Amino acid sequence: MNAEAKFNQLDVGYDVPAVPGMSVDEIQTPCLILDLDALERNIRKMGDYAKAHNMRHRAHGKMHKSVDVLRLQEELGGAIGVCCQKVSEAEVFVRGGIKDVLVSNQVRDPAKIDRLARLPKLGARIIVCVDDPANVADLANAARKHGTTIECFVEIDVGAGRCGVSSSAAVVDLAKAIAGAQGLRFAGIQAYQGAMQHLDKYVDRKAKLDLAVAQVKEAVDALKKAGLEPELVSGGGTGSYYFESTSGVYNELQCGSYAFMDADYGRILDENGKRIDKGEWENSLFILTSVMSHAKADKAICDAGLKVQSVDSGLPFVYGREDVKYIKATDEHGVIEDIQGVLKINDKLRLVPGHCDPTCNIHDWYVGVRNGKVETLWPVSARGKAY
Amino acid sequence: MNAEAKFNQLDVGYDVPAVPGMSVDEIQTPCLILDLDALERNIRKMGDYAKAHNMRHRAHGKMHKSVDVLRLQEELGGAIGVCCQKVSEAEVFVRGGIKDVLVSNQVRDPAKIDRLARLPKLGARIIVCVDDPANVADLANAARKHGTTIECFVEIDVGAGRCGVSSSAAVVDLAKAIAGAQGLRFAGIQAYQGAMQHLDKYVDRKAKLDLAVAQVKEAVDALKKAGLEPELVSGGGTGSYYFESTSGVYNELQCGSYAFMDADYGRILDENGKRIDKGEWENSLFILTSVMSHAKADKAICDAGLKVQSVDSGLPFVYGREDVKYIKATDEHGVIEDIQGVLKINDKLRLVPGHCDPTCNIHDWYVGVRNGKVETLWPVSARGKAY
Repeated sequence: MNAEAKFNQLDVGYDVPAVPGMSVDEIQTPCLILDLDALERNIRKMGDYAKAHNMRHRAHGKMHKSVDVLRLQEELGGAIGVCCQKVSEAEVFVRGGIKDVLVSNQVRDPAKIDRLARLPKLGARIIVCVDDPANVADLANAARKHGTTIECFVEIDVGAGRCGVSSSAAVVDLAKAIAGAQGLRFAGIQAYQGAMQHLDKYVDRKAKLDLAVAQVKEAVDALKKAGLEPELVSGGGTGSYYFESTSGVYNELQCGSYAFMDADYGRILDENGKRIDKGEWENSLFILTSVMSHAKADKAICDAGLKVQSVDSGLPFVYGREDVKYIKATDEHGVIEDIQGVLKINDKLRLVPGHCDPTCNIHDWYVGVRNGKVETLWPVSARGKAY
Repeated sequence: MNAEAKFNQLDVGYDVPAVPGMSVDEIQTPCLILDLDALERNIRKMGDYAKAHNMRHRAHGKMHKSVDVLRLQEELGGAIGVCCQKVSEAEVFVRGGIKDVLVSNQVRDPAKIDRLARLPKLGARIIVCVDDPANVADLANAARKHGTTIECFVEIDVGAGRCGVSSSAAVVDLAKAIAGAQGLRFAGIQAYQGAMQHLDKYVDRKAKLDLAVAQVKEAVDALKKAGLEPELVSGGGTGSYYFESTSGVYNELQCGSYAFMDADYGRILDENGKRIDKGEWENSLFILTSVMSHAKADKAICDAGLKVQSVDSGLPFVYGREDVKYIKATDEHGVIEDIQGVLKINDKLRLVPGHCDPTCNIHDWYVGVRNGKVETLWPVSARGKAY
């Protein structure tokens, strides 16, 4: 049976790029594929690490936006739940059965606060970040209206220069306001250093994280003095989790990209100067693309351009190939330098995207593959959930 | 009735960012909004221009991916149909009732060719581009299998350096092969100069287009000599349509971005040195965003980051404001420089995205607004249709 017949059999038209059982060669490109073996190894590895270091791992769902991947992170990697960035994402994860959900962001719009306050009714623990005393009353009013409890993390700005308060005094003031507000519960600290995750050198990342840890320790000490010891101190990403895990102050990790990897993370170096995608983590996420024109002898044109990836952190690289190079992205096309003319029409390539998070957010489906066959299709459940 | 109650009334949950009748202030951000008055003026203007110059306008649907916008382009702007870049987009437009559909791209995958060959059964004229003789037999076989006719444009590379053949001899050879293949019809020439559309200066764009026109003229003359006069000679974008329209050789335009505009197109200059978004076209597309943190005195953080826009062509600008500036995009956040501290939590801003095409492709909905009210919601019908 050819690919066409396999699609027709399901009567799904072409709203899916593949059907289970077909070979990788029959997948309709461009689309996202997941190497399930590599994905499972990454997930187990992070889970083992967290367990060995007595850390909770709250997997970052904003990266993959998939209930199915999150469940795998719970089952194989011992993840205790999810963090995400938007109320609409939290709604998707709660409805998908995830029981511990942190919105690691501020929620200020009245209608969004109302939505957030309803979520505990669906059986999930809901935590949100706060960096402004003016937010406390709004959150508390909504929780009381719905008869729920919203738990709150005080967000500390540990170097991202974005949201979050800076001084320990401000942290204590916010924690007091939260603890004193009926409907809310002070649950801990959000202290994610995002800006340092992508620094190439391990020592440079360590220097930034050392500062963050010192800042968080000071805040935690101040909270303890005020009788407000935080239950959870949460942070840590793929480029830093070993620092938080050995800090003696953090007890929860928020890693996301380790599961899929991407070109931008892959090029950072571990303690031994080795790219982290050459040992620490495996690439499990790829954009599968096909060559669809080769009218110029030295350039192959593939079907993966700006509409299937975000190039904010640079272009993708062609996985496992040294002989060809992705050199330009336009709306619908990728230009592949093919000096030796080795590529033929309909040849398939695996691209490792520059930045996995906004790339995954464009796609409706993950095509899970193993041993050259399509094993499963997972929806990108919270795709486009930005509001 | 507050925004919350309006959403609940519809029992839609929050899978839509707005409901008709609500005020712009109640829209859930971030999302795409369309200024319907500005959109209609742009569409009428391009329609009037095309009519006055005796050009067919085949509106580019790859930009907006919306059947609703395309219908407006037909109704108010006299568009004769659509061009798009993928078979999956063509499927959406054909099912949406559009009768003249060009896939302005190569289609090489066997399953995709099969899908293309079925589309004429749904009542649409289907045209596709060809740049390789090896493609002709595959297209013809599929058309015969389904008892349909696939019309073909020979694609000429007029400077993009991507798909398309270069010499007039190659054009004639391909046209002959198409004309001689049962199931196919030679319908004309695709000659879109994409690379020059974004050159700032009018004279620089003209110089590139003059070369393209000369190349197309030579090819058309060679075709006429061979008894293969092309019915349609198609090309032209928002930065060039006046050159094709007065070339004496093109008879069909393919403009897309004029309808919405974006920051990258907006900064190119017209014949008089004036930005085209300051007279020739109006911004009708915006990312509506809200301020959700202002923990630093000089920086407001808004809820529109990399997950709601493509920054491949640069950052967005804040529409109608000189006092604040969008200076950085991270996954979920935009950093707004606010030196004077004029922004407050929940203030709404309109961002003009750097590049409209890949930005629209991220969103599920266009919220159409007029006179401060939500008038309509249009699905981004072909969103994510990349295969």
